[in-house]
Amino acid sequence: MTIALVILAAGKGTRMNSDTPKVLHPIAQTAMLVHAMRAGAVLSPERTVIVTGHGSEEVAKAATSEDEAAQIVVQEEQLGTAHAVAQARDALADFDGDVIVLYGDTPFIDPRTLERMIEARASFDLVMLGFDIAEVQPRYGRLIMDGEKLVEIVEYKDATEEQRAIRFTNSGLLACNAKVLFELIDAVGNDNASGEYYLTEIVALANARGLSATAIKCDEAETLGVDSRADLAAADAEFQTRARNELLALGVTLMAPETVYLSADTIVGRDTVIEPNVVFGPGVTVESGATIRAFSHLEGCHVSRGAIVGPYARLRAGTELAENTRIGNFVETKNAQIAEGAKVNHLSYVGDASVGASTNIGAGTITCNYDGVMKHQTTIGENVFIGSNTMLVAPVSVGDGAMTATGTVVTRDVEPDALAVARAKQDNKPGYARKLFEMLKAKKARRNKGA
Amino acid sequence: MTIALVILAAGKGTRMNSDTPKVLHPIAQTAMLVHAMRAGAVLSPERTVIVTGHGSEEVAKAATSEDEAAQIVVQEEQLGTAHAVAQARDALADFDGDVIVLYGDTPFIDPRTLERMIEARASFDLVMLGFDIAEVQPRYGRLIMDGEKLVEIVEYKDATEEQRAIRFTNSGLLACNAKVLFELIDAVGNDNASGEYYLTEIVALANARGLSATAIKCDEAETLGVDSRADLAAADAEFQTRARNELLALGVTLMAPETVYLSADTIVGRDTVIEPNVVFGPGVTVESGATIRAFSHLEGCHVSRGAIVGPYARLRAGTELAENTRIGNFVETKNAQIAEGAKVNHLSYVGDASVGASTNIGAGTITCNYDGVMKHQTTIGENVFIGSNTMLVAPVSVGDGAMTATGTVVTRDVEPDALAVARAKQDNKPGYARKLFEMLKAKKARRNKGA
Amino acid sequence: MTIALVILAAGKGTRMNSDTPKVLHPIAQTAMLVHAMRAGAVLSPERTVIVTGHGSEEVAKAATSEDEAAQIVVQEEQLGTAHAVAQARDALADFDGDVIVLYGDTPFIDPRTLERMIEARASFDLVMLGFDIAEVQPRYGRLIMDGEKLVEIVEYKDATEEQRAIRFTNSGLLACNAKVLFELIDAVGNDNASGEYYLTEIVALANARGLSATAIKCDEAETLGVDSRADLAAADAEFQTRARNELLALGVTLMAPETVYLSADTIVGRDTVIEPNVVFGPGVTVESGATIRAFSHLEGCHVSRGAIVGPYARLRAGTELAENTRIGNFVETKNAQIAEGAKVNHLSYVGDASVGASTNIGAGTITCNYDGVMKHQTTIGENVFIGSNTMLVAPVSVGDGAMTATGTVVTRDVEPDALAVARAKQDNKPGYARKLFEMLKAKKARRNKGA
Repeated sequence: MTIALVILAAGKGTRMNSDTPKVLHPIAQTAMLVHAMRAGAVLSPERTVIVTGHGSEEVAKAATSEDEAAQIVVQEEQLGTAHAVAQARDALADFDGDVIVLYGDTPFIDPRTLERMIEARASFDLVMLGFDIAEVQPRYGRLIMDGEKLVEIVEYKDATEEQRAIRFTNSGLLACNAKVLFELIDAVGNDNASGEYYLTEIVALANARGLSATAIKCDEAETLGVDSRADLAAADAEFQTRARNELLALGVTLMAPETVYLSADTIVGRDTVIEPNVVFGPGVTVESGATIRAFSHLEGCHVSRGAIVGPYARLRAGTELAENTRIGNFVETKNAQIAEGAKVNHLSYVGDASVGASTNIGAGTITCNYDGVMKHQTTIGENVFIGSNTMLVAPVSVGDGAMTATGTVVTRDVEPDALAVARAKQDNKPGYARKLFEMLKAKKARRNKGA
Repeated sequence: MTIALVILAAGKGTRMNSDTPKVLHPIAQTAMLVHAMRAGAVLSPERTVIVTGHGSEEVAKAATSEDEAAQIVVQEEQLGTAHAVAQARDALADFDGDVIVLYGDTPFIDPRTLERMIEARASFDLVMLGFDIAEVQPRYGRLIMDGEKLVEIVEYKDATEEQRAIRFTNSGLLACNAKVLFELIDAVGNDNASGEYYLTEIVALANARGLSATAIKCDEAETLGVDSRADLAAADAEFQTRARNELLALGVTLMAPETVYLSADTIVGRDTVIEPNVVFGPGVTVESGATIRAFSHLEGCHVSRGAIVGPYARLRAGTELAENTRIGNFVETKNAQIAEGAKVNHLSYVGDASVGASTNIGAGTITCNYDGVMKHQTTIGENVFIGSNTMLVAPVSVGDGAMTATGTVVTRDVEPDALAVARAKQDNKPGYARKLFEMLKAKKARRNKGA
Repeated sequence: MTIALVILAAGKGTRMNSDTPKVLHPIAQTAMLVHAMRAGAVLSPERTVIVTGHGSEEVAKAATSEDEAAQIVVQEEQLGTAHAVAQARDALADFDGDVIVLYGDTPFIDPRTLERMIEARASFDLVMLGFDIAEVQPRYGRLIMDGEKLVEIVEYKDATEEQRAIRFTNSGLLACNAKVLFELIDAVGNDNASGEYYLTEIVALANARGLSATAIKCDEAETLGVDSRADLAAADAEFQTRARNELLALGVTLMAPETVYLSADTIVGRDTVIEPNVVFGPGVTVESGATIRAFSHLEGCHVSRGAIVGPYARLRAGTELAENTRIGNFVETKNAQIAEGAKVNHLSYVGDASVGASTNIGAGTITCNYDGVMKHQTTIGENVFIGSNTMLVAPVSVGDGAMTATGTVVTRDVEPDALAVARAKQDNKPGYARKLFEMLKAKKARRNKGA
């Protein structure tokens, strides 16, 4: 079955109280829209159509940077969900497979649920997705079933007492042949209080035309929608709980799971230990048997087996830590390849740099990668000893087995096995500190007196 | 109606197990007493009288630094709540408005509740404040009502079964004309088991004299008292939950609300994003559209629109970040004005300093503001490039468009467009690193052998 | 009564999904086995026998590093709990006191419970430990009592409906005379579905021989076992909650208790304030009246009265802070004795060093304790002023009242009251910065054009 996704992402989300379009608000550092796109992508759709509206450009940018083949259509006016789906008609004019309608603010849909919807399409013309709601809420429509057959969707306000007691509730997601879907949508009217075209009406229209309809069931959590920042935070918390439990099940130790913040794409290997208060930004892979100590912050990096990171280590994008490396406290790395067994233990910035195996970077070392206009590269060999407070003014290289003296500003390349020194001679001036203290205190006294 | 507050703040708080007076223990970084004072201050009281006792001096200091007009009276012996209120008599000798009695360890009272008490005073001589208690507890008195009329307050031990079932419970707060209040208090006796003068007795006394009494109702949470460190932590948690929800409602994104610690006076604008693990000390204002990244710590500072702070940034008192500034990791600022677009990205200390627009401060830069006796100012112009590991020995200035070379100790002012350099020449000694390593290893071997 | 502990620690813990032996997984930074050993150690046992199996060497190492007198025996094959206890026979061949059987994966047993078991031994030959289970679970055996007498232990699958309703459940812990215990174990058979020798069978055997048996009761929480990483995290959370509440009761302020991570041996004195997000590693003692600010990380250190630590301070092993010291942000200390009133406020590494009273260490100071092969000591006297960015190349000393100029690399000892300077002269090159910027911009433009 060839599949097209139509993802509705036009809403403003007034209750978000934000200039950012609703579907771009992130859960686990990933836009809600992207969560929905990734769920749909598991079906290997032939087309993906994103219906944008509010903040169309921003939404389009986010969508195409996740999937450059995504087609963007714009719903200029928000006239209801059926009207939104109708905007995808031209983009799918030559498409005769199945359409799945998803929502950009419903990020938790399980791909297996979508697969079940497609399976159900073998027996029914129209497949709606519902869930058993825990608490009766007037805002959702009831799915009225007759065995496997979906008879109608009744809005709460129009429902009888008996219907209101039904827990099987409409999620809005559906699967249908593209041609059929657009024909049904053509027939949807807007003769209602709000003057909108409602997608739910296609169930009655389908039945009226002798088409068959069904509704399958998913977990309520999958259909969780986000309408406010509080909803967003709750959805993120829900995501975090699930993701932490998955890591625990995989054999990762989280000393205090509730203090570890994960991204949607965080990968951590077995027998890795994660201490309290660690934040994973997007794009992090940690191999098995590593240790991520407290207060560390990782994004866009790879950490190999046996590496020890932190506490207070910040690994930025492009950091590659080989096996048994060590990044210690108050250290920032960026675009940095740290080879096996190398150590950067304290108070350093290693950016746009490669560090060879078994090299030791002393405390206070800085790769001066920016000259005020451009960024440059630093290359450090194997078995190098970089003395404390060494400034490596890039572009510059330090050869294997070389050494830099404490406090050296390295502006020229250092050959292998050489020692680079740049240092003024130490002069001890006897008694001078005492005099200086006395002088400064006298000055302060005068100043206070004057004040 | 002119109003005077009498805030009881004399108690020791034995269960706090502390040398600090009970009412000075903080919630959200603000003393409980100050929370109560701020609630009362909304009524624009003409007088505020603080009844101190244990730790009187410390309490007085905290009270007058919040409100320098606050009058401090001392209750030398703790002989009961009526006796405590009586200490305010002299301070209010010439006052004929209404007195509201508050408690320094009841920090969550809603100002609107106090306003309702004042309104009720229009119809009743004495207004008590009660709440419906969720769980029956023997320690609180029951408010026995007859319609709107408060008949009496019955202590649990003296109550009938029927009275014990009443949920309407005395909070201790009251409003009454000053003259009337002190007359009633004069009549309170101490003929009871503990020999104390109880404020609650004035209800019976008022009714006996033909005065009218009522009790109005507030939420139980408002009357939450703090008796132990566990209570204090619970009250703080309660405060945090409320304050986080308020930010969410205002359109602030908190990625993990439960990891963000707020102060009582924290202000954050709409569409600002706060990452996990951020601590706000007192006195912080963040404008709309800023980003506060993980592990940041802010106090006494202002952050403008578009600024990005952290991760691991510490903004101390007197920090002013203009629009689109950037304070990065392991950076501390204090008394620092950072102009539009300026950046301090890594491992720096910027204290007692101003930084001009579009200036870039290199990694490892330190404003050496302290000479061992006094603090001095550093002034950096616009479009300056401060090279990595520059030491700015204050007082010193760097002109617009100037530059400092990496590792320079700047002790003299740098003119606009000039380059300041102070650097020993780099000397590469061929083969010397290898010799040094060998020498050190041999030395270690000898040492180990000797040991 | 002389006592021997037999601690069963042979299991693999398949559900932990780990290469680390189950009993070595930590709770509050302490191996579960060590928790059990410490509970038993309160009884001052004459012998402690650890029955190892999976990961025997690692487990032995952990056990003997906690108690070097611990005897290690190896259970080559895991043939059941009775078989495991039997492995201790040789180690206890000459022992005629009481044996208590404990479990390496049951870390929360209360020592007072073990004392009650020993007391009960005065009246009974065999004492089992049970607990009232909150939810009926098929996996545990029921303790069938007749008054104080333990009649039998019935496994759920063999139990009658009436027996299944019993909540008194076997924990597996027991106390018995050594000789009697090993005789009973000899009689245990393995004629059951799994072919294992079950320790529980000794109850029936004891009764059959006319010995008296009883079971005493403990809290269910004490017998909490750990089978998975999720269990481990839950047990750690349970430990943390208890430990935090103990600190609160002792008069410690935890501003946000749920964000403070404690170790099993953390000691904190009264009226110390702990801000949010603090991690205590093993071996920390904080005296009364200290302040541990947010984002601090402490291990193996002692903090005295009046000291202020953090935010973002990392105190590593061997750090001793005297009274009224100050360790500020982005500072790491290790093997460092900081005398009264000394300050290390910003961005420094002080390792293998002593700092005298009232000395001020400037921002960016580094003790260069490692020469690439060996570690060396730095000694700093009293009332010293270490200028910012001073590099102290150890071994080196700075005398009382001395001073170092900003940016000095100190390689030779500095006498008392002397000023050490090592600095290149500052040269301001007029207009040079402007030229440099122009040159770099031109270069960039050419590069972009070329690309």
